[in-house]
Amino acid sequence: MPPRPSSPLVAGLDLGGTKLLGLVLDPEVEEASPLAEGRVPTPEGADAVLAALADLVTDLRDRARSDHGRELRAVGLGAPGLVDRAGTFRYGPNLPGVVGVPVAAELSERVGLPVVVDNDATCAAWGEHERGASRGRNHSLLVTLGTGIGGGITVKGEVLRGAYGFAGEPGHMVVDPSGPPCTCGRSGCWERYASGTGLGWLARDSLERGDAPADGPMVEAAGGEVSAVRGEHVAAAARDGDPAARAVFDRLAGWLALGLANLISVLDCEIVVVGGGLVEIADLFLPQTRRELRTVLIASEHRPRVPLVPARLGERAGAIGAALLATART
Amino acid sequence: MPPRPSSPLVAGLDLGGTKLLGLVLDPEVEEASPLAEGRVPTPEGADAVLAALADLVTDLRDRARSDHGRELRAVGLGAPGLVDRAGTFRYGPNLPGVVGVPVAAELSERVGLPVVVDNDATCAAWGEHERGASRGRNHSLLVTLGTGIGGGITVKGEVLRGAYGFAGEPGHMVVDPSGPPCTCGRSGCWERYASGTGLGWLARDSLERGDAPADGPMVEAAGGEVSAVRGEHVAAAARDGDPAARAVFDRLAGWLALGLANLISVLDCEIVVVGGGLVEIADLFLPQTRRELRTVLIASEHRPRVPLVPARLGERAGAIGAALLATART
Repeated sequence: MPPRPSSPLVAGLDLGGTKLLGLVLDPEVEEASPLAEGRVPTPEGADAVLAALADLVTDLRDRARSDHGRELRAVGLGAPGLVDRAGTFRYGPNLPGVVGVPVAAELSERVGLPVVVDNDATCAAWGEHERGASRGRNHSLLVTLGTGIGGGITVKGEVLRGAYGFAGEPGHMVVDPSGPPCTCGRSGCWERYASGTGLGWLARDSLERGDAPADGPMVEAAGGEVSAVRGEHVAAAARDGDPAARAVFDRLAGWLALGLANLISVLDCEIVVVGGGLVEIADLFLPQTRRELRTVLIASEHRPRVPLVPARLGERAGAIGAALLATART
Repeated sequence: MPPRPSSPLVAGLDLGGTKLLGLVLDPEVEEASPLAEGRVPTPEGADAVLAALADLVTDLRDRARSDHGRELRAVGLGAPGLVDRAGTFRYGPNLPGVVGVPVAAELSERVGLPVVVDNDATCAAWGEHERGASRGRNHSLLVTLGTGIGGGITVKGEVLRGAYGFAGEPGHMVVDPSGPPCTCGRSGCWERYASGTGLGWLARDSLERGDAPADGPMVEAAGGEVSAVRGEHVAAAARDGDPAARAVFDRLAGWLALGLANLISVLDCEIVVVGGGLVEIADLFLPQTRRELRTVLIASEHRPRVPLVPARLGERAGAIGAALLATART
């Protein structure tokens, strides 16, 4: 059935720790191209965040009207933290001051539209499932590798929300209790190793152990200071062929595979999608992660191979998924 | 609707590494009491196992006829390892020689009844969900603590099977890559710490580190040899009030809570049921596991408490769950 040109549109928003991205989607079109798009910096504090969200929705609605002559019928929002089934943002380390805020109800009140809120990585998983890399795969897992690790899961072709809406948070899975301290107060969480932040930590750890030369390209890229080495310096050095930087990526791949194997043992997903900032340099770690995964996944010789693929929707995955979740749930 | 006295019955079997337990259930009765029951030692090799399964079904069928005048209409079987959606037993460390055996098809052929096969802990999870400790809880997790750790998960009130039928295998979740070697060839799997076997390892580790006295009650119970200390010796010493043995149980509780927190972060289950052999001494570790779980679960202050309860169906959980799965799937 061809879409009616006047059928209602949906807005999808992705609230990050630093920026807020919004777009307008036609849910009846099988493409992920937004009809309008906007982004603003994320302000601080619950009131300012709610105001920014409402302003962005208003702006997107105005543009849907003026550019396409069409109305919005619902809003979806991905938020970085625990979101309960009622759309209340319970807690997220990257949104200080936003605790226990009924975001769905408040935003709906302000913009006069139904609002659906879910975890940002869960939204991204749904976006990739509906329009991206895991399309057609009922049992999928998406992990976003950025400052931390986010996650989203589908089971039988539906989002796994769990009892309270909190499912799919693998970043703080402890993979080594004697590992480095985590922002959450514990030690050895998976995201301490297998994220963008983790890449920098692994490099500094290799440098401190003497496994990487203190006068090598990674430290040079960081201005000569071991303590200043971050993921981007490791990536730059690895691109230039530095063996020490490549070895750091191998360590990253090992930790990434270990956590994914843990998750696959529990979820038995048929595909794993890797998103987040690190996916832009996927060629530096995804091939070796695939090999490692074959080694570390229990009984992998007795089960079908689980493809490990980069996300396709890029930074828009969360907003696209949020728009499509709102379409399904309103 | 009261059950018709002549309505068909189902058989449930639980195949363990050492024994095979079978029972007959009336699926229309809301109680878990079996109408007939039998058990035999598990023989070695695929052919002998299949023959033992068929013999037990035949015996149960005869008794259903003679004692109750009723027929069996289906058979459910829980098996200790990876079982795919077609009912083929792919692999399990406790059933040497049984690899890639189409158990459902073979047994169905032999007994002339529909046969459903799933993982044993998955069956136990379903049994507890339908007739035991997690009844009425849509999102549940069961872990069986025995030689290793098995697992079963429900999502939205249904068994989580996953893409290929392999979901819910948390025992080999790596929680410390530099930990003790595991039978699976890797190191630091969760079941190395938080199982019956793990309890013995933790005790020997504490003894070797000097955290527990080599002339104390645990070693005494083991005949004076540190290397001979097993879980049962730790339990006996803890019962007698030995502080060193109690400290070992505290370590067990810490590792159990750590793994459960990992799983709850991913699954967001509303209840955790603990089954398996260790549950018989649950009073020695469950209270402190509950406390630890509050500490190690990420953002636990922002989410509802997850009850951690002992299984109710005891050693019959797997067979009861298998019977009820067969009822639902045939």
